[in-house]
Amino acid sequence: MPERNRRLILAERPTGKVEDSTLRLEQHDVPEPGPGQALVRNRYVSIDPTIRTWMDDVHGYLPPIGIGEVIRAGGIGEVERSNCERYKEGDLVFGLTGWQDYVLADEGAAVMRALPPGVDPTAALSVFGLTGMTAYFGLIDVGEVREGDAVVVSGAAGATGSVAGQIARIKGASRVVGIAGSPEKCAWLVDELGFDAAINYKTDDVAARLRDACPDGVDLYYDNVGGELLDIALAQLALRGRVVLCGAISSYNSREQIVGPKNYRNLIPRRGRMQGFIILDYAERYPEAQAQLAQWVGEGKLKFKTHIVEGLENAPDALNMLFSGGNTGKVIVQVD
Amino acid sequence: MPERNRRLILAERPTGKVEDSTLRLEQHDVPEPGPGQALVRNRYVSIDPTIRTWMDDVHGYLPPIGIGEVIRAGGIGEVERSNCERYKEGDLVFGLTGWQDYVLADEGAAVMRALPPGVDPTAALSVFGLTGMTAYFGLIDVGEVREGDAVVVSGAAGATGSVAGQIARIKGASRVVGIAGSPEKCAWLVDELGFDAAINYKTDDVAARLRDACPDGVDLYYDNVGGELLDIALAQLALRGRVVLCGAISSYNSREQIVGPKNYRNLIPRRGRMQGFIILDYAERYPEAQAQLAQWVGEGKLKFKTHIVEGLENAPDALNMLFSGGNTGKVIVQVD
Repeated sequence: MPERNRRLILAERPTGKVEDSTLRLEQHDVPEPGPGQALVRNRYVSIDPTIRTWMDDVHGYLPPIGIGEVIRAGGIGEVERSNCERYKEGDLVFGLTGWQDYVLADEGAAVMRALPPGVDPTAALSVFGLTGMTAYFGLIDVGEVREGDAVVVSGAAGATGSVAGQIARIKGASRVVGIAGSPEKCAWLVDELGFDAAINYKTDDVAARLRDACPDGVDLYYDNVGGELLDIALAQLALRGRVVLCGAISSYNSREQIVGPKNYRNLIPRRGRMQGFIILDYAERYPEAQAQLAQWVGEGKLKFKTHIVEGLENAPDALNMLFSGGNTGKVIVQVD
Repeated sequence: MPERNRRLILAERPTGKVEDSTLRLEQHDVPEPGPGQALVRNRYVSIDPTIRTWMDDVHGYLPPIGIGEVIRAGGIGEVERSNCERYKEGDLVFGLTGWQDYVLADEGAAVMRALPPGVDPTAALSVFGLTGMTAYFGLIDVGEVREGDAVVVSGAAGATGSVAGQIARIKGASRVVGIAGSPEKCAWLVDELGFDAAINYKTDDVAARLRDACPDGVDLYYDNVGGELLDIALAQLALRGRVVLCGAISSYNSREQIVGPKNYRNLIPRRGRMQGFIILDYAERYPEAQAQLAQWVGEGKLKFKTHIVEGLENAPDALNMLFSGGNTGKVIVQVD
C-alpha cells in the first residue's frame, strides 16, 4: 500500500495531444475517511477518448475538468477502510475514481457501486462497462440495427467498435465491415471476431473497398472517428441509412482543424439520419444490456480484448495511444 | 393558343447558376395526342430549388435531367383535346408538365391528376402543392414539432420556409424564428406571418441574434439553406434538438465549394439528430395535409404569398431568383 496519494492534475489545457506540460503529478497524504465515508484504493482506470474532450474548455455533456483538478476517469477500486454501512472492507467498487491512487467514496452521494461478485474487474470496465453499454445501446437503440443491414464500424478495433461490430453480426446484419488502422487489427476483426471484411484506412482506398464490401450501400454506420471516413460513409449511405455518432476521435486532438462532413447533404435524397447519443442517458437499462452481453460472452459469440497498461504514471501515454491507434481493444491502466 | 410548342431544353450542365448557355429554346410542332392520350396546355409551372439539383449529373432521388431533355418541373395545365376517359376538355390537371407550352398526358401513366374544383391553380402549386406538403411533413413528421419548442427556419421567406414557420406557430412552438435575407422579408415574417423574431443573415450577427431569440437553445431547426447557418444552428442546438434537412440552397450553385457543418459533433453531447427527407415518400398522406392546411388557411391562421413571373422564357431567371433571394413566397411562372 502506497503511503502517499499520487494524483494526476490538469495543469494546463492541451491544444493537441496530451503533453508533459498538460498534467502535473502531485503527492498528497492519503485522505482520511470521515463519518459516512469509505477510503477506496484505486486499482484500474478506464482509458476512454472522452477524457480528452473533458480537458478542453468546452461544456459538453459534463463540465470540463477544471485546472488544478484531478483527471476524471471511470475506474474500479477496493474498499480499504469504511465508516459506513454501504461499503465493506475488501469490496470492489466502481465509479469515477479518477487518475489517482485513493479516492473517498461517500455514502450519500453514491458515486461508487459494488461490483457484482465473480466479475473480472477488467471485464467490468470494458464489455460490461460503459464501453459495452455504448456499443449495445448505440447500435440497437440509436442505430436500430435490423436483420439484413450492411453495417460499417469505424475505430473497429477499439474497445467500443469491436463490440459494436460483433453485436451487429449477432443481430443478423447481412455484412459487418470494420475500418481500422493496421493489418493486424484488420486480421483480428475478420479472423477472430467474425467481421465480413476489414478496411485499413491507412493503406486502402476506403471508398472503393467500401463499395465492394457494401454494393447496396451502408445501412448503418457506427462512427467513432469522424473526419474523412464519415464523409465516405455518408456518400455511400443506403436508402434510410442511419449514422450513429458515438465519437469523433480524429478531431479530439485538433480542434482548430475540424472538417465538417460535406456529404451530409446526401442525407436528403437518401432519407437518412445522423444521430448522437450519450451513454449516461441509458443508465436505468444497463442491467438489461449487461445480462445480454454476459449471455453472448458465455456462449462464445462475443469476444473482447483488454490492453493493460501498468502504472498510474503511464495513464497520459495510454490516453494518447487511443488517438495514435496503438491499442487493440480496451485500454485499462492498472494503477499500482 | 400558340401554334408552336416552345420547349426549354438542357443544352449543357451548369457549373454555377443557370446561364444563357445552359438552356436552349426549341420550337416544335404542337404534339398530337394518340389514343388514350390528352393534349395539355401548360398554364403555370412551379419554380423550386430542386430543379437546379436535377441539372447536375448526380443521381439523387430522381435521375438527372438528360442533355437534350426538357427541363423537368411540376405544373398545372388545361386539357385542350382528349382521346381518353380520364381527361375531359377544359379540365385543370397537375403533374410534371415541364418547361414547355404543351405536354401529352397519358391515361395509363397517370402522370397528371385533376385539380379539385374551386382550388386556385397558384395555391395548388404552393401551399396545397409540394411546397406546402414539404413544410407540413418536414416539420410534423420528420421534425416532430412539439408544443413549447423553439423553432428556427432558414430560407424563412421562401415558399416552404414561410409555411413551415407558421405551422410551428400553430402547433404551439414557444417561439418561431425566421432567417431571411432582407429587412422587408424579416418584417413580413414578423408583422404578417406572426414569427416571434426574424434575423437578416446578410446584416445581422446571426449567432448573437439567435442566442437572444432562443436563450435555451434551438429545439428544431428546419433547414433550407445549409452552409454557415446550419453550423450556427448546430452550435446552439438544445438537448435532443432536431435538424430537419429540407434543402441546402446555399450550395446548389457551387458544388465545388460545399463546406460541411463542422459543428455536427455537437449532435453527440446534445443527443441531437439531423435527418433528411423527400416529400414524394408522403404521397399517400397528401390529402390529410391538404385538408389540414386548407382549414388553417380558411381560419386565417396560415398565409401564403405567390410571386408570379410571366412568360415561359423567364423561367431560367425565375429559378436563379431563388438563389439570389429575389423572391418572397412561392415563385410560379405563368407560361403563356
